[in-house]
Amino acid sequence: MSIVVYLPNPKTSAKWVTRLQGVLPEAEIVSAHEPFDAQAVTYAAVWQPATGFLAGLPNLKAIISLAAGVDHIAADAELPRHIPVIRTVGTDLTQRMREYVAMQVLNLHRYMPEMQLAAAKAEWKALVAPVAGQRTVGVLGLGNLGAASAALLAQIGFETRGWARSPKTIDGVTCHHGPEGLKAFLEGCEIVVNLLPLTPETHHILNADFFAQLPKGARLLNAARGDHLDEAALLEALESGQIAHAILDAFPLEPLAKDHPFWTHEGVTVTPHIASQVDPETGSHIMAANIAEFEAQGHCKDQADMQRGY
Amino acid sequence: MSIVVYLPNPKTSAKWVTRLQGVLPEAEIVSAHEPFDAQAVTYAAVWQPATGFLAGLPNLKAIISLAAGVDHIAADAELPRHIPVIRTVGTDLTQRMREYVAMQVLNLHRYMPEMQLAAAKAEWKALVAPVAGQRTVGVLGLGNLGAASAALLAQIGFETRGWARSPKTIDGVTCHHGPEGLKAFLEGCEIVVNLLPLTPETHHILNADFFAQLPKGARLLNAARGDHLDEAALLEALESGQIAHAILDAFPLEPLAKDHPFWTHEGVTVTPHIASQVDPETGSHIMAANIAEFEAQGHCKDQADMQRGY
Ligand SMILES: NC(=O)c1ccc[n+]([C@@H]2O[C@H](COP(=O)([O-])OP(=O)(O)OC[C@H]3O[C@@H](n4cnc5c(N)ncnc54)[C@H](OP(=O)(O)O)[C@@H]3O)[C@@H](O)[C@H]2O)c1
Ligand SMILES: NC(=O)c1ccc[n+]([C@@H]2O[C@H](COP(=O)([O-])OP(=O)(O)OC[C@H]3O[C@@H](n4cnc5c(N)ncnc54)[C@H](OP(=O)(O)O)[C@@H]3O)[C@@H](O)[C@H]2O)c1
Repeated sequence: MSIVVYLPNPKTSAKWVTRLQGVLPEAEIVSAHEPFDAQAVTYAAVWQPATGFLAGLPNLKAIISLAAGVDHIAADAELPRHIPVIRTVGTDLTQRMREYVAMQVLNLHRYMPEMQLAAAKAEWKALVAPVAGQRTVGVLGLGNLGAASAALLAQIGFETRGWARSPKTIDGVTCHHGPEGLKAFLEGCEIVVNLLPLTPETHHILNADFFAQLPKGARLLNAARGDHLDEAALLEALESGQIAHAILDAFPLEPLAKDHPFWTHEGVTVTPHIASQVDPETGSHIMAANIAEFEAQGHCKDQADMQRGY
Repeated sequence: MSIVVYLPNPKTSAKWVTRLQGVLPEAEIVSAHEPFDAQAVTYAAVWQPATGFLAGLPNLKAIISLAAGVDHIAADAELPRHIPVIRTVGTDLTQRMREYVAMQVLNLHRYMPEMQLAAAKAEWKALVAPVAGQRTVGVLGLGNLGAASAALLAQIGFETRGWARSPKTIDGVTCHHGPEGLKAFLEGCEIVVNLLPLTPETHHILNADFFAQLPKGARLLNAARGDHLDEAALLEALESGQIAHAILDAFPLEPLAKDHPFWTHEGVTVTPHIASQVDPETGSHIMAANIAEFEAQGHCKDQADMQRGY
């Protein structure tokens, strides 16, 4: 078995190669930043592959996404679309995301950004929030990450709702679905968390029309992808007070440009795409298990449906 | 029945009077900032009573603390020590505290202060934390607030321990107790949360010796009282790197003085005593129920043991 690893950063690629080699000692594993035999490669483990990179591997059995999302692969205009794509997910990825969502929803709920702004000026500004049971929070996307995050928000005590494509049942969470279910989800939703995959349907879903359906002064957490958000619409909604604060973890271009208005906007908190990630240590074990499953059965439970886009 | 309400702020006193009157329409309820008949008063509901105020009420049956803590009453040098003191607690107080503790422990765990410091300079600084299961968090004090907070931290996934005076059993929490149990509690404890009551035994418990027993780079959340903390020792521990960051919600003098070094210290986050509070709406119902219980039985389950100090 020959596996090529591609991430834009050669150092990170090399780190993955080392980890994978440890878990799969028999396999031939190379970084795409080193010379390698493209004919021999049967698996490509990738993050944001360069356009045409995958098309140059004629004997590929499957593509492995080094992330939960596959939008970074679907974006390749020359992608060989018949090759299966396997997502890398797992308990650590889910755990990190539910921690991050709980943390940021609590920060928004308890007015931490507003109080920290005051504290930076040595101002004692005590803002009292309602208890979580009187606060409505909604999670867009109820997949691996969204469902676990919504369940934890409900355990913390929030009035919690969720939205997916198909009907769901989650303890303590009122679930809506489909385009027809979005209106009811948004009505009265004071804090919205985005955990959708990026697909043509969800591109710029966080737009002016979406914001207008929320109650005045709603708060936003985008922990999915930068292209879910219409940035100009957010800036306008912050200006009008329709959105009181937004915490953003993902951006169309990362790292976020030094002169981007989000860095200095008082209504925006930027985190550097750290909501969750697959780390090489546990991730390499998950990938090895997925490859074994794929070799044995010709498919894998974590395979994405590239037609659907996630 | 005649109740006098005393808080240092006349406006807040008046707010409590109105709320209490709504719940106890038959009772005579007055603010201590208005003229009133001291002889007639049978209950005094107080927050930080002025020295001698309570001693001037000769027919007092019980003192009601407008808070979970009673240290603000014990501090009165002229306190009539034979009068029972009733704490005002309840589900809202507990809920607000567990929200706050979960939020701030997650912020410390996920290096939010460090990343926000970088973000203020438009720096994309991605810091990856271990998953919560690989992070040890300890809660000092396992009363109403500490026990509920520790239980939630365990549900979030932290390796959680607690410390109290007597042995405890809490799902998912390793419980230590007594002075002899403190060493084991502190060893390897990466994030410490203080929810002790302020008593002679716990005064300046967060001191140089305490910090030295934590692992290097530990983080601190003080959500109890300012006098639990030896401020000079904290500043030294921050200087040496023994403590990496502290979030402080309570201070010996509040509001914190404009020129206090904590406001500008990069290793300190100040919140303005908002971790939790009894609000007049639900609090007035709890007080009315406590008074009814005390009238019927001559004692009340929420009565403090003033000998013990909490
Ligand atoms: N910021 C970070 O650090 C970070 C880290 C990891 C992942 N992420 C992001 O998180 C996203 C979610 O990950 P996941 O593993 O939870 O994804 P997933 O398991 O594929 O779940 C996607 C969810 O979104 C729903 N959905 C998809 N298209 C929809 C539409 N058009 N309308 C309504 N609902 C729709 C799906 O509904 P059905 O269940 O009905 O199909 C499903 O519930 C990833 O795609 C990635 O962008 C971000
Ligand atoms: N910052 C805020 O907004 C805010 C709001 C509300 C309350 N508070 C603070 O939170 C504190 C805790 O409130 P609570 O209602 O949870 O108190 P509580 O029910 O009286 O519980 C106190 C806990 O501390 C333990 N304890 C007391 N003295 C000890 C000692 N010397 N050594 C070891 N353990 C000791 C007790 O042990 P045992 O169970 O064995 O007796 C008990 O578990 C309050 O006193 C107040 O200062 C702060």
